[in-house]
Amino acid sequence: MITLKERIVNSETRIFKAVFPNTTNHYDTLFGGTAMHMMDEAAFICATRFSRKKVVTISTSQIDFTKAIPQGTIVELIARIEKVGNTSCVVRVEIYKEDMYNYDRELAVAGTFTFVAINDEKKPIKIIDNA
Amino acid sequence: MITLKERIVNSETRIFKAVFPNTTNHYDTLFGGTAMHMMDEAAFICATRFSRKKVVTISTSQIDFTKAIPQGTIVELIARIEKVGNTSCVVRVEIYKEDMYNYDRELAVAGTFTFVAINDEKKPIKIIDNA
Amino acid sequence: MITLKERIVNSETRIFKAVFPNTTNHYDTLFGGTAMHMMDEAAFICATRFSRKKVVTISTSQIDFTKAIPQGTIVELIARIEKVGNTSCVVRVEIYKEDMYNYDRELAVAGTFTFVAINDEKKPIKIIDNA
Amino acid sequence: MITLKERIVNSETRIFKAVFPNTTNHYDTLFGGTAMHMMDEAAFICATRFSRKKVVTISTSQIDFTKAIPQGTIVELIARIEKVGNTSCVVRVEIYKEDMYNYDRELAVAGTFTFVAINDEKKPIKIIDNA
Amino acid sequence: MITLKERIVNSETRIFKAVFPNTTNHYDTLFGGTAMHMMDEAAFICATRFSRKKVVTISTSQIDFTKAIPQGTIVELIARIEKVGNTSCVVRVEIYKEDMYNYDRELAVAGTFTFVAINDEKKPIKIIDNA
Amino acid sequence: MITLKERIVNSETRIFKAVFPNTTNHYDTLFGGTAMHMMDEAAFICATRFSRKKVVTISTSQIDFTKAIPQGTIVELIARIEKVGNTSCVVRVEIYKEDMYNYDRELAVAGTFTFVAINDEKKPIKIIDNA
Repeated sequence: MITLKERIVNSETRIFKAVFPNTTNHYDTLFGGTAMHMMDEAAFICATRFSRKKVVTISTSQIDFTKAIPQGTIVELIARIEKVGNTSCVVRVEIYKEDMYNYDRELAVAGTFTFVAINDEKKPIKIIDNA
Repeated sequence: MITLKERIVNSETRIFKAVFPNTTNHYDTLFGGTAMHMMDEAAFICATRFSRKKVVTISTSQIDFTKAIPQGTIVELIARIEKVGNTSCVVRVEIYKEDMYNYDRELAVAGTFTFVAINDEKKPIKIIDNA
Repeated sequence: MITLKERIVNSETRIFKAVFPNTTNHYDTLFGGTAMHMMDEAAFICATRFSRKKVVTISTSQIDFTKAIPQGTIVELIARIEKVGNTSCVVRVEIYKEDMYNYDRELAVAGTFTFVAINDEKKPIKIIDNA
Repeated sequence: MITLKERIVNSETRIFKAVFPNTTNHYDTLFGGTAMHMMDEAAFICATRFSRKKVVTISTSQIDFTKAIPQGTIVELIARIEKVGNTSCVVRVEIYKEDMYNYDRELAVAGTFTFVAINDEKKPIKIIDNA
Repeated sequence: MITLKERIVNSETRIFKAVFPNTTNHYDTLFGGTAMHMMDEAAFICATRFSRKKVVTISTSQIDFTKAIPQGTIVELIARIEKVGNTSCVVRVEIYKEDMYNYDRELAVAGTFTFVAINDEKKPIKIIDNA
Repeated sequence: MITLKERIVNSETRIFKAVFPNTTNHYDTLFGGTAMHMMDEAAFICATRFSRKKVVTISTSQIDFTKAIPQGTIVELIARIEKVGNTSCVVRVEIYKEDMYNYDRELAVAGTFTFVAINDEKKPIKIIDNA
C-alpha cells in the first residue's frame, strides 16, 4: 500500500513557462496576477494528484514576490504538499526564475494554498482515506 | 490641495465581470487562479491611482475564498486603500458574487495586496509625496 | 417598491482595466476590437442587472473612437441604461482613458448597445415587469 | 498599374473560426463582444491590405446581430471595402454562421467600420496615393 | 449531386490574422506554437466542411517553419484537402506572411494534418458517404 | 565541466496542466491545436535550457494523437533532448493524460521538434560550444 510519504513525493507538480509578452504588464515583467493564476493551477493539480478527490481552494497564505521576472526569462513552478489535515491539505508553491542564456536561477515568488476535499453535495470529506 | 482621505476615496476601483466558460474550472465555477488574477489587477490599478507612481506587488495577505462562484453569475471586485506606509500601501480587494436573475449578492473572496512605489532604478520611494 | 429611476441608478456598471501588452495592436495602443469586446461585456452586465432577465445584444449604434489609448494607461468603462423600451433597453457605454502617473482623464470611446429580453424559447418578453 | 477596383478585390479578407467554449457566453452562444473583436480584426486587415498604410478605427456604424451563433458551429467573416474617401475608407464585415454537419449557412451579424490612414505624427493622410 | 472535386473546392478554408503582441515570443516574432494552434484550427474547419462529419486530428506530418513572422505583419492560412482515404482525409495548411505596408508575400510555414471521421461511439466511419 | 549527458538530463522540462473549458473544442476534449501550442512551448524551453542560446523552431516531425484528452483530466508534458546536431537539436515531447480521481495515466500525444541556434544576425551557430 502507498504510504503518506510516497503520496506526497508522487504528487509534486512542476510547471515550466516562458515569459512572453502575453503574460507581462507594461513594465515588461511578469504580471503578479498572472503569477498567482499559475501558482493556483500548480497547487490545484498537486492537491488533486495527492488526494485523487475533488478539491477547492479555500485560502492562500501570504504570498511574497521577492524578485521581478522580466520578459524573456523562464520560470519553473514547484508545488508540494506541506501539511495534511483531516479534510484539507496545504500546498507550498515556489516560482523560480531562470535566465535563458546562462545558469542563473533564483527563488522569485512563494506562498501556500489550502484546499479542502468535498463530495458532490459540496460537504467536506476526508482528504485521503487512509489518513 | 488634495487630502489623504480624498486620495483614498478617489482611488477606489471597481470591476464588474460576467463569469463565462473561459474563466471557469471543470466544476463550472470561477477558477481560484482567475479570481486572484483579477484581484491583483484591481489592486494594482487602485494603488497606481492612489499614488500616481510606479508600483509593484510585493506580497499578498491571506486570501479567503468563502463562496464558490458558478458560471452564469456576475462578480464585482472592489479595491480600496486600507493602509498607507512610507513607501508602500495596502489594498483590500473584495469579490462580490451577484446572481443574474435576482438581487442576491454576497461576499465571496477577500484579501489584501501590498504594493511598494519604486523609481526607475527600482529603489523604493515615498508612496505619496505629501504623506 | 423599486422605481425605474432606482433600477437605472443601481444597474450602472463600471469596469477598470490596465492596458497591458496582451490587449494592444502593433502600434502599442488598445486594439479597437478589444475595446468593443469590453464595451459589450459592460453593456451586457448593465442590461442584465437592470432587467434581471436573460438578455441578448441585438445591435449597436455608431461607436466613436476619438482618442487612441496607449499601453501603460488605465481605462474605465461606464455603462448606463439610456432608454427603456417594451422588450428592449439601450445601454450607453463610455471608455475613459486615464494616465497612470498624473490626473489626466478624457473620454476616448463611446457608443450604445441595444439588448432584448428573451424567454427560454428565445421569444422577446417585457424587459422589466413593472415597465 | 493597379486599379481601384483591383485593389478592392485584392483586399477582401476572409476569416473562418470554430466556435469553441473559450468564445462563448453562459448561454453557450458566441459572445457579442467576441464577435465584434473578430469583426474589427477582419476590417483592420482589409483596410490595411487595401491602403498598405497605417490605419486606425475611427468609428463603426450600427452593427446588427440577427442570429445567435451556438457553440459547435463555424463562422466565416468576410470584410470588403465598401466606400473610399480621401483619408478614410469604410469596410463592411459580415459574419456567416455555418452548421458543421450540414450545408446550412446564413448571415448572422453585419456592420461597417471606418478607418483613417495616418502618418507617424498621427495626422490623417490620403488613404491611397492614386485615389 | 456534388462531386468529390466540388467538395474539395468548397471546403477550402482561409484565415487572415494580424500578428499582435499577444501572439509573439520574446523575439517579437509569431511563436511557433501559436502558428501550430492556428494551423490545426484551419485544418479542422476544412476537414469538417469537407466531410460534414465529426472529425478528430490523428496526426500531423512534418511541419516546416521556413520564415520568421515578425510582429506587425499579416498572415493568411490556407487549408485544402490533399488526400481522401476511406475513414480519413489529409489537409495541407500553408501560412503566408504578408507585409502590411507593401505587397511582399511569401510562404512561411507548411504542413499536413490527418483527420479521421468518427461516430458517437468514437469508432471510425467513412469520411464521406459517396467516397 | 558539464558533460553532454548532464546537459541533457538537466534540460528535461515538465509542464503539468489541468484541462479546463478554455482549452477544449466543442467535443469537450483538449483541442489538438492547444496541445501543439503547449508542446512547442515545452520543446522551446527544453532546447533553450539545453543550449543556453537563442533557438527557433525549424520543423516538427510527425505528431501522433493516440488518445483523446477529456475536460477534467490532467496532462503532463515531458520534453527531452533526443538528438544533438552541429547547429540544431531535436526535442521529443510526450503528453501524458492522467485521470484526476484515480491513478490511470497513459501516453496520449507524442512528436519531435527541431530547433536551430542562431546569432543576432539570425545565422545558425553551434548549438553548444563544447559539442
